[in-house]
Amino acid sequence: MPLKALPINCTLKADPGKSSSTDAMIAVLAKAFAKKGVEISETVRVAALDIKPGVTSDEGDGDEWPGLRSKILAHDILIFGGPIWMGQIGSVAKRVLERMDAFLGETDEQGRMPSYGKVAVAAIVGNEDGAHGSSAQLFQALNDVGWTIPAVAACYWVGEAMGSVDFKDLKTTPEKVEKTAGMVAGNAAHLASLLAAKPYPG
Amino acid sequence: MPLKALPINCTLKADPGKSSSTDAMIAVLAKAFAKKGVEISETVRVAALDIKPGVTSDEGDGDEWPGLRSKILAHDILIFGGPIWMGQIGSVAKRVLERMDAFLGETDEQGRMPSYGKVAVAAIVGNEDGAHGSSAQLFQALNDVGWTIPAVAACYWVGEAMGSVDFKDLKTTPEKVEKTAGMVAGNAAHLASLLAAKPYPG
Amino acid sequence: MPLKALPINCTLKADPGKSSSTDAMIAVLAKAFAKKGVEISETVRVAALDIKPGVTSDEGDGDEWPGLRSKILAHDILIFGGPIWMGQIGSVAKRVLERMDAFLGETDEQGRMPSYGKVAVAAIVGNEDGAHGSSAQLFQALNDVGWTIPAVAACYWVGEAMGSVDFKDLKTTPEKVEKTAGMVAGNAAHLASLLAAKPYPG
Amino acid sequence: MPLKALPINCTLKADPGKSSSTDAMIAVLAKAFAKKGVEISETVRVAALDIKPGVTSDEGDGDEWPGLRSKILAHDILIFGGPIWMGQIGSVAKRVLERMDAFLGETDEQGRMPSYGKVAVAAIVGNEDGAHGSSAQLFQALNDVGWTIPAVAACYWVGEAMGSVDFKDLKTTPEKVEKTAGMVAGNAAHLASLLAAKPYPG
Repeated sequence: MPLKALPINCTLKADPGKSSSTDAMIAVLAKAFAKKGVEISETVRVAALDIKPGVTSDEGDGDEWPGLRSKILAHDILIFGGPIWMGQIGSVAKRVLERMDAFLGETDEQGRMPSYGKVAVAAIVGNEDGAHGSSAQLFQALNDVGWTIPAVAACYWVGEAMGSVDFKDLKTTPEKVEKTAGMVAGNAAHLASLLAAKPYPG
Repeated sequence: MPLKALPINCTLKADPGKSSSTDAMIAVLAKAFAKKGVEISETVRVAALDIKPGVTSDEGDGDEWPGLRSKILAHDILIFGGPIWMGQIGSVAKRVLERMDAFLGETDEQGRMPSYGKVAVAAIVGNEDGAHGSSAQLFQALNDVGWTIPAVAACYWVGEAMGSVDFKDLKTTPEKVEKTAGMVAGNAAHLASLLAAKPYPG
Repeated sequence: MPLKALPINCTLKADPGKSSSTDAMIAVLAKAFAKKGVEISETVRVAALDIKPGVTSDEGDGDEWPGLRSKILAHDILIFGGPIWMGQIGSVAKRVLERMDAFLGETDEQGRMPSYGKVAVAAIVGNEDGAHGSSAQLFQALNDVGWTIPAVAACYWVGEAMGSVDFKDLKTTPEKVEKTAGMVAGNAAHLASLLAAKPYPG
Repeated sequence: MPLKALPINCTLKADPGKSSSTDAMIAVLAKAFAKKGVEISETVRVAALDIKPGVTSDEGDGDEWPGLRSKILAHDILIFGGPIWMGQIGSVAKRVLERMDAFLGETDEQGRMPSYGKVAVAAIVGNEDGAHGSSAQLFQALNDVGWTIPAVAACYWVGEAMGSVDFKDLKTTPEKVEKTAGMVAGNAAHLASLLAAKPYPG
């Protein structure tokens, strides 16, 4: 069975019709994952869902996290896409991370969280500066709640300091981004296949 | 005219009836500010408002940021209160920061953002670890969009590593927190009064 | 062949005779790793070595990084131990990270850095607050230069906010720290053994 | 009496003869400060000094921190210059921050640290990404130990993601950097003059 990856797009734009640079970066990674034989599900536009604030797995009343949570856990690889704002990962991404906090209390008899054995990578874009700070936040939070981070797990693009160019408007994908996407996808696919075959014993 | 401070509470709990540790920390700071002659407005429970994702000052359609934005800018001092989740400042706080990104484009003829001359301090609580990382994020983002940070601007409490005690359930406020609150309030009030008398020339 | 783990202690104290809380945390992890059959080498007290500032693998003139670098790369698992100062990972730890920057240019024909297939975990201690911010920095930097981060890779302890108790002076190791050490060691050993058997193809 | 500013350059290069991008950014800021009537002292190349690891104000035995500490405290404004490595502020900058930790215990009868009333700004450069994360670390640490952060206190430049251009090799200073330097200098000079005239009461 092929490995499956789910891209989530944490842009601040709720309308999936509105193109987003995060989508553009996810597309670069999706192509790289496809080359490694990984099946890519349709990207989830998180801001289009009603993800309630909170740290439980179901905040009731129209909360759409339970559905997204199940979808995430039905995949081997999470492509966590998000934009940089003010040099930091955006609030929609933070909301998703927060909801995963509940994993800490959802361990099986071997003490394993639902995320154990799953691999996460980051797809980060911004007009300028903030990718490393953003991936630091993502990796720490995701790792705390059980995700495994493969070697070179961040694919990112930002323009020159105080710039205003959008990644989606670049005429061609920068070669270094393409190359990084290949490394990220190759490493993630390799690690996910190892863990799928031999899960953490807990 | 006395200086005015606005506390905002970025807890994830939307219901203002539900007590929050962030409220408890804000109360400690409010008392300290009152001692310095600063007038404290009623705390805004941000999660009770519909603050849309985005980076403009009005995201339309029921967006309650414009009202909160006006209220914030009608005060000299912002007491930015927020909880730690996963070792990081929560998503509701991030949402507020993001909306202030618009200040960058709202300068007057002297190039001054609407926040110029205003002073911000942090009120941070968590069961455990994450206060310094949270204040780092707050200070950098707030400073980027024009806020001034007085000496010793963070009042915080967290319990021992991996603990689960809530600040609001402590029998007494720890002496070090009381003392820090006094420093934060004294420094913020002093600096805000200087800037109110002699604004940044731009 | 058993897996081998190297603990490095990035305390600010140069004298290995001076006991350090980081050593105490490394000891907790070392015991947990030993239980998983991992062979633990003697801890390197980094501040006792002359690690020059720089981003190459040899800064000449008495630089002791080349020796430490070789030792690190001769192990499957790195136990990266460091103290928190000012809510952040200390400068000696930062020095070590910086020197690994050179890995980016030391890839083999398959584009793999010398760290590929190796697993890193964090052992972090402080009197108070800063563990999550520190592990965020460690994970992002280590991951950028090729290290793989197993699920739940940080074992840490900090006291209550603004506290002054040292981890090494605790009468007993807190149960949650023991438990976390077991998870960190188990996950790291499992992942390192998978990667030792089937390295990243690059 | 004119205000005095001290630039410190936390490049990893010990040899002051070797030009550094951090020097180039400091030069942009120094010019902007001079225009505001601030007197700029000669830049300290920190890596050329023997700043011992530690958190006291004198680590004995050839430690050159006591001299640098006195120099810093003899100025009204600190221009804290440092390079980004691995998306984070470098280890030499971290060393300086750490040594200031001692300020916490060096308060006067009014509870004021030696840094009270002094203003700090950041001059940050890198080939690519990491300026916001770096300024977050600087602002939080400096603020914790008593420094005041004026509105818009970071002047920075980084190139496009994964780029390798050095700031010192740019043919002209980007207009946005020039403009930011003007804001940083203007705000810092204004705030420092207010605090020099009316110090924090403590």
